[in-house]
Amino acid sequence: MSSEVRYHVDGDLVPADEATVSVDDRGFRYGDAAFETLRAYGGTIFAWRTHLERLERTCEILSLDHGLSADELRTRVDETLAANDLADAYVRLSISRGVQPGKLTPQPAVDPTVVVYVTPLPRGGLEGEPVWDGPATVETVETRRIPDEAIPAAAKTHNYLNGILARAELGSDSDEALMCDLDGRLTEGATSNLWFVRDGTLHTPSTDGPILPGITRAAVLELAREAGIPVQEGRYEPGDLLEADEAFLTNRTWEVRPITTLDGEPIGGGPVTEQLSRLYDERVEESCYR
Amino acid sequence: MSSEVRYHVDGDLVPADEATVSVDDRGFRYGDAAFETLRAYGGTIFAWRTHLERLERTCEILSLDHGLSADELRTRVDETLAANDLADAYVRLSISRGVQPGKLTPQPAVDPTVVVYVTPLPRGGLEGEPVWDGPATVETVETRRIPDEAIPAAAKTHNYLNGILARAELGSDSDEALMCDLDGRLTEGATSNLWFVRDGTLHTPSTDGPILPGITRAAVLELAREAGIPVQEGRYEPGDLLEADEAFLTNRTWEVRPITTLDGEPIGGGPVTEQLSRLYDERVEESCYR
Repeated sequence: MSSEVRYHVDGDLVPADEATVSVDDRGFRYGDAAFETLRAYGGTIFAWRTHLERLERTCEILSLDHGLSADELRTRVDETLAANDLADAYVRLSISRGVQPGKLTPQPAVDPTVVVYVTPLPRGGLEGEPVWDGPATVETVETRRIPDEAIPAAAKTHNYLNGILARAELGSDSDEALMCDLDGRLTEGATSNLWFVRDGTLHTPSTDGPILPGITRAAVLELAREAGIPVQEGRYEPGDLLEADEAFLTNRTWEVRPITTLDGEPIGGGPVTEQLSRLYDERVEESCYR
Repeated sequence: MSSEVRYHVDGDLVPADEATVSVDDRGFRYGDAAFETLRAYGGTIFAWRTHLERLERTCEILSLDHGLSADELRTRVDETLAANDLADAYVRLSISRGVQPGKLTPQPAVDPTVVVYVTPLPRGGLEGEPVWDGPATVETVETRRIPDEAIPAAAKTHNYLNGILARAELGSDSDEALMCDLDGRLTEGATSNLWFVRDGTLHTPSTDGPILPGITRAAVLELAREAGIPVQEGRYEPGDLLEADEAFLTNRTWEVRPITTLDGEPIGGGPVTEQLSRLYDERVEESCYR
């Protein structure tokens, strides 16, 4: 990370390579922190309110009463973009439970540590280049997604070893690890939601399984319904995916990214993937550039 | 934490309140780190080799090739104790995967961050006071232990939200949260292994379930067998525990800690618990003071 980039840490803008937290911060000791991945397009945070709601939902699940207002959080994000003179960026907003006495049991009185990370990220979209190098090479892995009964998938936290173990199983040419639940049903990638098209219907695993309710996922669902594309949320197995006509992944950074192969078998995008990708770009355009 | 305490961070001894890691450290971003909780008694780390082996096992599971020798790690622990002039202490040794480029997929080339934490902890043992305030008040909780298929319980990592969610369910007077697996079998506390005695036989959940193979657990198993106490490792339900004559928890810090109540029902220690507690103290005595 270049020392010219500045992060927002605990209320101050600091050079990224000097940005630190205490080793006693529960974010470091236990991964006891909530986060959101945001995109700034043309200086505007896309779907800010929706991200804020999910962040609050995560904090509720963690009983993490950080005490910061929506405006304070937004101000820190905006200050970070301004300090780096960035209009198009990847932004990560993290809130840890901060330093507490040396016990695992969380204390109600929280002095949170808020970190805003930024990285320049070209706009992509209607007139730009996609942020990914190419369509995704995907592998199904042995690592199973953590069930909701252990840690609710709706919480987006710094406990990311489940996804890291999944990614560590990948061959060096693969981009994403697809996890099943304990019953062998498809859930999601380590950092992305899964979609496929079969006989003209768009399918995605339903969030009653252990699946992060992705904000890009919700946007794509809405766009598909508005466009009259038949949509089904359900429970699927890897075999269903192998029979698909098209498949793609979504997340905030990748937006809509076609899956070129699954476990070496070609799938690829197609007309529905392309239509949704265009509709998504238009939605960003409407939200952030008008 | 007093500023007089010094930690060992990334090769240097620093005042605890100035001890930091980068916000880009994977230990903070993802909880991507291994750790061990150690006890120093009279200046000697109890069961160092066993802890080292488990640390290496954790790192293997995480594909974390930290590149440090056993001697280097031991030197850092010893230097930390010496710098704080401590003979009796709680010691936490953490190894994170350090800073890597901004992607989730771990890179094989690791510049690890090693942190040695210390806190003074009176010896306890044969002639001292126990480190806990009193016997443990325990509650069974709704949060289920993460299954091995998602994250192997044998890995002792900075991903501790499962235990934090369990502890967050507790009433303010309770010390430990007892988790079941997804099938409703007893596993362990958020930071302790579980034991109970019924009709003279010592029982503890077997490690083929999602249970950390505690080093204190292994020591107590060995001591019980040496003493001719009948031992059974198995799969149990909360009802089995409620019918117990004695029950206790073990971990490195608590050593052998009786359970006074489970969900408000009295259990308590007893002759077997007391015998094992004394044998454990004697083992510490032999290992660290001779």
